[in-house]
Amino acid sequence: MSRWEPGARERLVVAAVDLFTEQGYDATTVAQIAERAGVTKSTFFRHFPDKRELLVAGQETLSRLLTEGIAEAPGDASPLEAVAAGLERASTAMGPGTRELAPRLKAAIAASAELQERDTLKTVSLAAAMTTALVARGVPDPIAALAGELGVLAFKRGYAEWAEGDRGAEGERGAEGDRGAEQELAGYVLAALDELRAASASLG
Amino acid sequence: MSRWEPGARERLVVAAVDLFTEQGYDATTVAQIAERAGVTKSTFFRHFPDKRELLVAGQETLSRLLTEGIAEAPGDASPLEAVAAGLERASTAMGPGTRELAPRLKAAIAASAELQERDTLKTVSLAAAMTTALVARGVPDPIAALAGELGVLAFKRGYAEWAEGDRGAEGERGAEGDRGAEQELAGYVLAALDELRAASASLG
Repeated sequence: MSRWEPGARERLVVAAVDLFTEQGYDATTVAQIAERAGVTKSTFFRHFPDKRELLVAGQETLSRLLTEGIAEAPGDASPLEAVAAGLERASTAMGPGTRELAPRLKAAIAASAELQERDTLKTVSLAAAMTTALVARGVPDPIAALAGELGVLAFKRGYAEWAEGDRGAEGERGAEGDRGAEQELAGYVLAALDELRAASASLG
Repeated sequence: MSRWEPGARERLVVAAVDLFTEQGYDATTVAQIAERAGVTKSTFFRHFPDKRELLVAGQETLSRLLTEGIAEAPGDASPLEAVAAGLERASTAMGPGTRELAPRLKAAIAASAELQERDTLKTVSLAAAMTTALVARGVPDPIAALAGELGVLAFKRGYAEWAEGDRGAEGERGAEGDRGAEQELAGYVLAALDELRAASASLG
């Protein structure tokens, strides 16, 4: 079963983000989240160790997809081309459900210092995952570390633009819910990576 | 009075790192730290809100020095030249006392998940401080963000090599305790920045 299945797990995530936004992260209990999602508390705990981990549940999946995409890039791909392959693999896994949730997730994070820290640590671990995958391809250390940082900057910037949804990637956008919308995040993220690649020539 | 003064504050830091290394971070109390440092608990709380903040006490100072160095770089400095000025300003403030403490600090962090998180969040906030200082100089956003990340990578890498002390910067090293040793960290950090600048040409 995919971790992205639209079942109890996804209902729990949506319920939690709604409650965090309505009444704050600290005031929300696991029992309330389970009730809103229409499941029992033990179903909650089958999916998540606690309410905080719920919001970063996608992190291991994301790290795995980034790593796989980088590992499976063509042997002659440059470090940034391999990073682009990883970002594309991870981005296409984030469909319209993720996009719909994004503004509420952003509001919940903005309202909680603990969630902000968790979110920051998540991006650092994604950079580390990309760097490790590049080193495994034989990319030398300083280049791999730098490419991993560029990858995570591209992902953050592309995701933020995609979540706001105020700009079409490559001038077109599929209707929400179809496969076109799923591909869209990848377009934003790869455009951000291109911008950063261009910026690296202006560092002086 | 400088925040780097070798008084109660520094004795508290040394005592805390010793105790964290000897008996673990969680098992160490503020009372034990104060006793080891030869001060009262209320002296501890005049310097630090809690034991965790003690280990990151230098962060605000570091951010301020990075920001000042970047702001005061010549008007025609490139983004990375401005970052180098910030790194040099911050590095020269870290003298032989910091270097002596570094291996124990590293051991304490390695032994505590909470301290690892705190340390990670610190590096992210230093990158943000450099990015903000570059934007204030008129550096456009994607270039400023990238230069800030390079700056923090250079600081981390240079600091790690300096703390291990197994390589001479520029082929020479002053005796510990003299001004030569203070300048040394800057040498390591600027060499790391040069390495990263060269690496950025190989990203592909």
